[in-house]
Amino acid sequence: MISKVKNAMSSLVGGMMPHGHHHHHHNHHSGGGQPCGPDSLPPRFPYGRPDFLDLTPELLQYSTEHASRPVLTLKRDSRLPWRSGYAEVINAGKSMLNEDQGCCEKLFVKKPSGKNRNSSLLEDNGDGTGIPMHYWGVFDGHAGSGAAIMASKLLHRLIRDRLGEICHLLENSNSAPPICLSKNGSPYQADSKKGAAQDTEDPDAVTDSSVRFHMEKVVSLESLVMGVIETAFSQMDDLIEKEKASYAISGGCCALAAINLMGKLYVANAGDSRSIIIRNNEVIPMTNEFTPESERQRLQYLGFLRPELLGNEFTHIEFPRRIQHSELGKKMLYRDHTMTGWAYKTIVEDDLKFPLIYGEGKKARVMATIGVTRGLGDHELKVYNSNIYIKPFLSCVPEVKVYNMDENKHGPNDVLVMGTDGLWDVTTDREVADAVSAYLSCCDPSDPMRYTLAAQDLLMRSRGVLKERGWRLPNERLGSGDDITVFVIPLAGPGTET
Amino acid sequence: MISKVKNAMSSLVGGMMPHGHHHHHHNHHSGGGQPCGPDSLPPRFPYGRPDFLDLTPELLQYSTEHASRPVLTLKRDSRLPWRSGYAEVINAGKSMLNEDQGCCEKLFVKKPSGKNRNSSLLEDNGDGTGIPMHYWGVFDGHAGSGAAIMASKLLHRLIRDRLGEICHLLENSNSAPPICLSKNGSPYQADSKKGAAQDTEDPDAVTDSSVRFHMEKVVSLESLVMGVIETAFSQMDDLIEKEKASYAISGGCCALAAINLMGKLYVANAGDSRSIIIRNNEVIPMTNEFTPESERQRLQYLGFLRPELLGNEFTHIEFPRRIQHSELGKKMLYRDHTMTGWAYKTIVEDDLKFPLIYGEGKKARVMATIGVTRGLGDHELKVYNSNIYIKPFLSCVPEVKVYNMDENKHGPNDVLVMGTDGLWDVTTDREVADAVSAYLSCCDPSDPMRYTLAAQDLLMRSRGVLKERGWRLPNERLGSGDDITVFVIPLAGPGTET
Repeated sequence: MISKVKNAMSSLVGGMMPHGHHHHHHNHHSGGGQPCGPDSLPPRFPYGRPDFLDLTPELLQYSTEHASRPVLTLKRDSRLPWRSGYAEVINAGKSMLNEDQGCCEKLFVKKPSGKNRNSSLLEDNGDGTGIPMHYWGVFDGHAGSGAAIMASKLLHRLIRDRLGEICHLLENSNSAPPICLSKNGSPYQADSKKGAAQDTEDPDAVTDSSVRFHMEKVVSLESLVMGVIETAFSQMDDLIEKEKASYAISGGCCALAAINLMGKLYVANAGDSRSIIIRNNEVIPMTNEFTPESERQRLQYLGFLRPELLGNEFTHIEFPRRIQHSELGKKMLYRDHTMTGWAYKTIVEDDLKFPLIYGEGKKARVMATIGVTRGLGDHELKVYNSNIYIKPFLSCVPEVKVYNMDENKHGPNDVLVMGTDGLWDVTTDREVADAVSAYLSCCDPSDPMRYTLAAQDLLMRSRGVLKERGWRLPNERLGSGDDITVFVIPLAGPGTET
Repeated sequence: MISKVKNAMSSLVGGMMPHGHHHHHHNHHSGGGQPCGPDSLPPRFPYGRPDFLDLTPELLQYSTEHASRPVLTLKRDSRLPWRSGYAEVINAGKSMLNEDQGCCEKLFVKKPSGKNRNSSLLEDNGDGTGIPMHYWGVFDGHAGSGAAIMASKLLHRLIRDRLGEICHLLENSNSAPPICLSKNGSPYQADSKKGAAQDTEDPDAVTDSSVRFHMEKVVSLESLVMGVIETAFSQMDDLIEKEKASYAISGGCCALAAINLMGKLYVANAGDSRSIIIRNNEVIPMTNEFTPESERQRLQYLGFLRPELLGNEFTHIEFPRRIQHSELGKKMLYRDHTMTGWAYKTIVEDDLKFPLIYGEGKKARVMATIGVTRGLGDHELKVYNSNIYIKPFLSCVPEVKVYNMDENKHGPNDVLVMGTDGLWDVTTDREVADAVSAYLSCCDPSDPMRYTLAAQDLLMRSRGVLKERGWRLPNERLGSGDDITVFVIPLAGPGTET
């Protein structure tokens, strides 16, 4: 989303802002498709659209035409893994480039060997052996496209490599994962009765499951995969920070990823992208959005416990509007990190600071700067004209929801839809479900393009048509002016894909 | 709940506990019904059962018979406000006294006058003028009954008095509450265009609603009442702490309160009591429980941000079991405050500390001490044989849910059930709904005792019958050994009550 990091309060009188007016951060693109950092470092990855679109330089240029806003889809003879449908469109002139990115890959999970232990981030498919894993990622950049591009190139590989480390546990899918592993990765069972198990051949690998401790939680394989995904997001975020020393990596991004592994679909979301399952035209939400409003209490709690992060400029208390100096001593509605309702408090000097969370709906901001509270990157993001970093308030950890593919029957019109917020801002879950269901039910079930055509149809509806009064939907409402990226993924499976 | 504060790890080997074995805290009752604090301070309120039970000293004594565990209900000719049904039973010998308390009152909300401004906590009904408010409270004490008794005597008055302060806003229920109030309580509208409104008679009370700020959230009257309830719980908690200087007030308590005000039912819960609405035999949950497991991430986050609160004895990281010293350097499953899934980490020295959150289900504990994470009191509670306070990890703020009474039609068998965890531990929501619905449908709709009889029936089912192998339910499962308190409240309203 383009306007996520911007002058949230541009309509406010200057004197009410902690540091005067704000501006777009880190929008230092040269415009020719090669973003270049403020320190003239080389880009970590060059700007581009997803490889699977196979754009020529001319088409790449055409994709950024703000006047025409072409909806890009897969070429007629191209195929994505799992028959996935894809479409994208650029914003209405808000940034030079499309800051969204998408990724769709089939990978193979296997134990890291000596050869690929350090270099496997570079390769996608290896020799085609291992546990198959399908992956879809949608990244919505802000303040530049660098973080989104890097995440779209690497996050799936991080997840695959971390799954590789527990590959031997995944293969043994009938038993719960061991609580403790020895250094060589085999289960380790400490023995409180017999001493340190001197009588086994490998003293590091006691597997006598009858020796149990007093309390021992059973952890499912599913929650182990969830943990892999959660920690891989953190690792991705660390990697962005680390490589910023050597490369230009601009901004941050929301990250939404879906992983199909061993009959289960894991949907991981950090940000305000959104994913729903449509089954029999019914909607099953697979994500929650993370915004200043939905995460208000978490952020206020941090500001309350660590007031130094607020830099003496912000207050963790929320007020329904800014307070004027003349209102000192009067009573104003407020809520703190413990409250859901509102109460009155007597206004003191400290309450004149700018609220940590301010604004409503799409205009809500953290420290008057950013409108989304989870994602990757943003390590350098500061409050305008200050030394206050936003990053401590942001989380890179996704919420992961699991859907059991094997336990449900799916028809050809049952799909997972993943989309950046540009889609959902103008089209409700219900409207998306109705549009996709209607489109697919009119479409030949054997058409290999059907899910891509449904994605394209969805984007046409949400972008609208350029009229004198801007991009308009058929019902004359304003269409989305944002970048939009969408996947439509058939739940019935990859079909004849090998 | 009796066992909420106890030696959580009594079955663990001694050497694994941070300070050897734990014991019950603050169970300093003299047994004769008058708890007396460790410092021989007088009790804040004498021990007793709710006034509306109207027990003679002999019956009060009988109520604590652990061998017979009589189910106490309202006397045949007594009436509670709103035709409410009530029943209670003591635990199976785990504490000297019944640590649960209940409260049911009809009160009147009105503007504090000079006369009652400071003393109104003492009176319940005043002169019967003002906005009527019905209140039900259920308090489940632990480590003594002092906090539960005090909360049952005062919390409803605090709520009423706080509502009284905004009485003039409640009476004007068609308009949203003003964001700012002048010192005299009238709406104050700051003026950014005209300056400080010198031209009105009362410069403190500018009400020109056309003067609006750039952003101004609309706050509903409903969320103002929620804020009153939330802050009243905090105030109650502060009052318990404050009065501990002069009185013996033992332990802490879970607090569950329901308030009916102006056609809306507010259910506020801090702890592991539970409330459901049964409507057409369907269950609508009105509370979530707050336990070490449900609040794990909040508590871990605090331990992570404020490690000094862990006193160098505990780690904020969760492990599925205790770690042995011999396992240093191996890999163990863990999760931190950001994670829902589990991952492996290499065990370091710091991981040998006792986990902040440990145990499963009813045996889960914070710092090996307490099994509930919200409630009132517990200010003095420490980890056994240490100077580590538990209170910073506990919250006294309830979650408030609102049910619109006026927008729904209710039959005579539609009720709100409020109960301490002794009820829900052995009887599921569904079983409670089925039992209550079945009982009420066989009961004369005009019988004034019908809701009390339904409450009594529910308790008989959940307590069971004393057999050789303990208190048993008809299906031979173990009955509840805990104190149980339950209200059954008709949603159709107070009937002919004036």
